Amino acid sequence: DFTAKDKIIIGIVGGDGIGPFITSEAQRVLEFLLADDVKTGKIVFKIIDGLTIENRAACGKAIPDDVLTELKACDVILKGPTTTPREGDPWPNIESANVAMRRELDLFANVRPVSVPEKNIDWTFYRENTEGAYAVGSKGIHVNDDLAIDFTVTTQDGSERIIKAAFDFAEKSGKNKVTVVTKANVIKTTDGKFLDTAKAIAKNYPTVEMDDWYIDIMTAKLVDEKRRSQFKVMVLPNLYGDILTDEAAEFQGGVGTAGSANIGKQYAMFEAIHGSAPRMVEEGRGQYADPCSIIRAAGMLLVHIGYNEKAEQLQKALDVCGLYEKKLVLTGRETGATGSEYADYVMETLSNP
Amino acid sequence: DFTAKDKIIIGIVGGDGIGPFITSEAQRVLEFLLADDVKTGKIVFKIIDGLTIENRAACGKAIPDDVLTELKACDVILKGPTTTPREGDPWPNIESANVAMRRELDLFANVRPVSVPEKNIDWTFYRENTEGAYAVGSKGIHVNDDLAIDFTVTTQDGSERIIKAAFDFAEKSGKNKVTVVTKANVIKTTDGKFLDTAKAIAKNYPTVEMDDWYIDIMTAKLVDEKRRSQFKVMVLPNLYGDILTDEAAEFQGGVGTAGSANIGKQYAMFEAIHGSAPRMVEEGRGQYADPCSIIRAAGMLLVHIGYNEKAEQLQKALDVCGLYEKKLVLTGRETGATGSEYADYVMETLSNP
Ligand SMILES: CC(C)[C@H](C(=O)O)[C@@H](O)C(=O)O
Ligand SMILES: CC(C)[C@H](C(=O)O)[C@@H](O)C(=O)O
Repeated sequence: DFTAKDKIIIGIVGGDGIGPFITSEAQRVLEFLLADDVKTGKIVFKIIDGLTIENRAACGKAIPDDVLTELKACDVILKGPTTTPREGDPWPNIESANVAMRRELDLFANVRPVSVPEKNIDWTFYRENTEGAYAVGSKGIHVNDDLAIDFTVTTQDGSERIIKAAFDFAEKSGKNKVTVVTKANVIKTTDGKFLDTAKAIAKNYPTVEMDDWYIDIMTAKLVDEKRRSQFKVMVLPNLYGDILTDEAAEFQGGVGTAGSANIGKQYAMFEAIHGSAPRMVEEGRGQYADPCSIIRAAGMLLVHIGYNEKAEQLQKALDVCGLYEKKLVLTGRETGATGSEYADYVMETLSNP
Repeated sequence: DFTAKDKIIIGIVGGDGIGPFITSEAQRVLEFLLADDVKTGKIVFKIIDGLTIENRAACGKAIPDDVLTELKACDVILKGPTTTPREGDPWPNIESANVAMRRELDLFANVRPVSVPEKNIDWTFYRENTEGAYAVGSKGIHVNDDLAIDFTVTTQDGSERIIKAAFDFAEKSGKNKVTVVTKANVIKTTDGKFLDTAKAIAKNYPTVEMDDWYIDIMTAKLVDEKRRSQFKVMVLPNLYGDILTDEAAEFQGGVGTAGSANIGKQYAMFEAIHGSAPRMVEEGRGQYADPCSIIRAAGMLLVHIGYNEKAEQLQKALDVCGLYEKKLVLTGRETGATGSEYADYVMETLSNP
């Protein structure tokens, strides 16, 4: 419970590529909203700038040890996108920093809301965030030149805690419906366990309706304008959550518009759901990166640390400002205004609601 | 090469639920189109009605041995949907008959075209059909009560043959572009192999452009009306192909409208991409099941056995008849007309083009 705390440390992790550009804008918005408590020292921002691909490559670790220590000293973290090395990149084959952070800080619930009132869309995704197809990271096996194997790992505890979180939310929010998404007709052992666990847990929530669909047909159902508003809260194993939330975000304006909360028992991390767009920075266009997603993530962070009213103010301002790409008066290059100008616009709107 | 053959045996597998209803309608359409060659005995239909969930449950096998022998005696197969047992069903936990048939007949290429001219959509999906997350079927491991493991298996040969098929098609069709879809940033070992193999193969096709995207963002890109027409031919590991083709079919009118070709070196099987809808049959509405998808699959079968002209006639008739749900004059229950009436309508249109 954060309301009882004297001091809340908010770690700001820039990450790679456009990350530092957009994260600093989100930090400005947070500082603006929390100005009073920053003054009294209740809110402290801590810049963690060591989570770069260069540092990670140098030590060959997804998260350098000193960065992990710094992360663990924070109460909550706002994180920009990080670059995952790919074949052909100048870096060794290290794991995604995202995936590693979720596991190291045991951030088991990846909560992603997608809301488009005019389309009657109001979805909240509870993505399992530490296991499934992501469990062993890069530790699959090249048995020989012909044969490669990866593992999907699902545990009872790991399934229970995310499914319970989804049902708790469905109950408390009054949405009263949870849709479980798996591919249990084929991936029978792990997804079967996930689905069985959900069915068992559902019995403890008599007011919450549960249904289940396979991930393939689910991607079709989200497209179906007539039927998609039947979905409220969805709970999914890691990989399906990854896939379905990107599709869902597109109806709201793209992955650039959605924030993501990664929540565990001890830590919580809030991030943009898009990538680090290194090309934008190489081409000198970093300042034009869209900060919408990370500012939304900052809004989720506010709720998490108990500043619900501030979060609501921010949400209203964002609704007024609209999507960066669509609404802001174009002032030049490609996507229009700089991220700074957009953040200014948000803060002006906050000042004159 | 089928044109040189004296006799082509077309196996008709009804399957479960609505399968026998819609499959027999597709057979009627094929018999109508191929009437001359049916008379001479060049075309022979062979009904294989043993692939039912009851038979499979009785022998505990995804495909009963005698059915497998019958299947292997055919040149091509037209198959209705089969029911995959689920937890809570009265059947043992046997593997999907689809998945087993694809593997047993080594039908490595699952080709799924989706075309919506008015939306500028013209996609052809090459889904790897025998390995990936589907490789070991139900043979994952419950290590203990807490821990479940599934395996994803990707081979060099398995990747090469599907990727080559996609590039060959892109080259021959003049589409000249292949998009490789993986999640190689996380599922590094198997998807990494698939992506690396694609990059190596691409070098042999200088006129074909290749790009690659991750499956999560790809589901968003298909929704993006401005950018989705950039995609032409897509090649994907099994699970992503399963997911993305259902989403794609939705833009065309739903999974009920798309056919699917499962092609190997020796055999080929054509099927509807939707399920067996047992509830429709239980409620006595089997005759109202939409035969569009399986009739489209029959069209793909015609191309495969060298009846290109007949296939084109059928395609034109289907374009005129439109989607079962949307265009046919409603004659009563739920989705309107019976599957028989729809097939009659297609055949009338074929007679009076
Ligand atoms: C960057 C990548 C590793 C990550 C994921 O796959 O989880 C991203 O797609 C996301 O959804 O947060
Ligand atoms: C029925 C099911 C096993 C099958 C699959 O997952 O491949 C289906 O969804 C398909 O796409 O043909």
